[in-house]
Amino acid sequence: MDAMTRIERALTGSMARADAPGAPPGLAAAMRYSVFPGGARIRSRLCVAVAAACGDDDPALADATAASIELLHCASLVHDDLPCFDDADTRRGRPSVHRAFGERLAVLAGDALIVLAFETVARTAASAPGVMAGLLLTIGRAAGMPYGISAGQAWECEPTVDLTHYHRAKTGALFIAAAAAGAIAAGADADPWRDFGDRLGQAYQVADDIRDAAGSAEEIGKPVHQDQSLGRPSAVTRFGVFGAVSWLETLVAESMAAIPACDGAGDLRGLIASEAKRLVPKELSRRAA
Amino acid sequence: MDAMTRIERALTGSMARADAPGAPPGLAAAMRYSVFPGGARIRSRLCVAVAAACGDDDPALADATAASIELLHCASLVHDDLPCFDDADTRRGRPSVHRAFGERLAVLAGDALIVLAFETVARTAASAPGVMAGLLLTIGRAAGMPYGISAGQAWECEPTVDLTHYHRAKTGALFIAAAAAGAIAAGADADPWRDFGDRLGQAYQVADDIRDAAGSAEEIGKPVHQDQSLGRPSAVTRFGVFGAVSWLETLVAESMAAIPACDGAGDLRGLIASEAKRLVPKELSRRAA
Repeated sequence: MDAMTRIERALTGSMARADAPGAPPGLAAAMRYSVFPGGARIRSRLCVAVAAACGDDDPALADATAASIELLHCASLVHDDLPCFDDADTRRGRPSVHRAFGERLAVLAGDALIVLAFETVARTAASAPGVMAGLLLTIGRAAGMPYGISAGQAWECEPTVDLTHYHRAKTGALFIAAAAAGAIAAGADADPWRDFGDRLGQAYQVADDIRDAAGSAEEIGKPVHQDQSLGRPSAVTRFGVFGAVSWLETLVAESMAAIPACDGAGDLRGLIASEAKRLVPKELSRRAA
Repeated sequence: MDAMTRIERALTGSMARADAPGAPPGLAAAMRYSVFPGGARIRSRLCVAVAAACGDDDPALADATAASIELLHCASLVHDDLPCFDDADTRRGRPSVHRAFGERLAVLAGDALIVLAFETVARTAASAPGVMAGLLLTIGRAAGMPYGISAGQAWECEPTVDLTHYHRAKTGALFIAAAAAGAIAAGADADPWRDFGDRLGQAYQVADDIRDAAGSAEEIGKPVHQDQSLGRPSAVTRFGVFGAVSWLETLVAESMAAIPACDGAGDLRGLIASEAKRLVPKELSRRAA
């Protein structure tokens, strides 16, 4: 079964537990809308890819872990789009959750998705108690304070912010967790995978900055030029578009070099190369070529 | 060490991990403000009291579990007070979190407190892997969908709502979890404690409805008459003030009767009696006497 099928199946299973009989239908619908249909599922694919590279000893646990990573990512998007943050009208080419379901259900959908992420891992890891704490703490670190997604969003509320600090929390933390947790779920040592996840996360954030500055809303499915209009720190603001593209190329190369020796290294490099190609706006990659 | 000291110490320890060097200071401050100084800590005291009644085999785990319950409660208050929900200006006698720190940090404080709740249990339960999944799933069920706090708040967004359904999710779920998780943390069977937690949670919700309808903002530290002005389901709207007081008395008696046979039953009854007295507005308890 390919990675996307595994991830969608795990997410569908998680969501079915949240949307059991007796659940408030509006929130259940808002949660589904937040998760399906998904984007590229890059973080959860990374998790499954690392688990596969480490031997995939417990596929059900790897899938649950990947789903958990994806649920946290979706939760962060829903809250990031809220009127008090980016006030984004669209996401993945259609109305954002608060535009479709109202602000209250958007706040609650984010909350409930965070809870569901932890439940998803805890339920499956009950049969693997030796790795459960490591998995949960890896995921928790990526989501909360002091260095996770919440921390990253909170840096946007500070008068001054270090760009590396901000990106590492807002984006990098979940990439690091995806790589580390994928290894843990397969019974492998997480440490060699953190540096790989870190560099990949940095690459992804720079690519996102480039898309925001130089892409079209049609192409990327959400509003563009948000960094500039919201005064957010961005690699493009700092280095210019072509400086940012150059930085992205360096980070992609570094992340490939950071892959620990393993059977699945080749597949991982292929995944990264195809993602890097996908993430740079077509117009820009033609000009840069 | 008394229960309140244990709980405050566990909460202080959790918060110190969230507010480590390199954390965004605004969010760290908003989280602390959300948790300290606390209210009556009734849910976490319930958790510690049940653990004590069950023998308190692992006090550190009971304390971490109680802190987790309290963090989830605080998170729900912060999000419940947001402009899109109750738009409450005050909580615990001072400005609500979004009034003091802005809406963005209030959303993030709630998110990060939910994550911290799971991390707090996972970290301590690492040395008790046999009970970790049970604890985490008990807590998760109380917080998310389909029957936890998020579900309860979401029922406020539905055109029609069953009062019992709504209260059980919004308030009862965390009382049930506090009782059940307290038992699990002490190595005991959780099942006999769920009915007790359920009835106590119902009693607390009815008391809260009464205080909202018949208390003063000065006495209870938050705006009153919110149920009526926000059109929320309430025991007072349904049965009148004195009908609600009568229902409260029945529920308190039922919760006491539901305490499983154990050494700490007497202490638990004392805790419930003092809480029941505290929660009915003075003016009303004099009139009802």
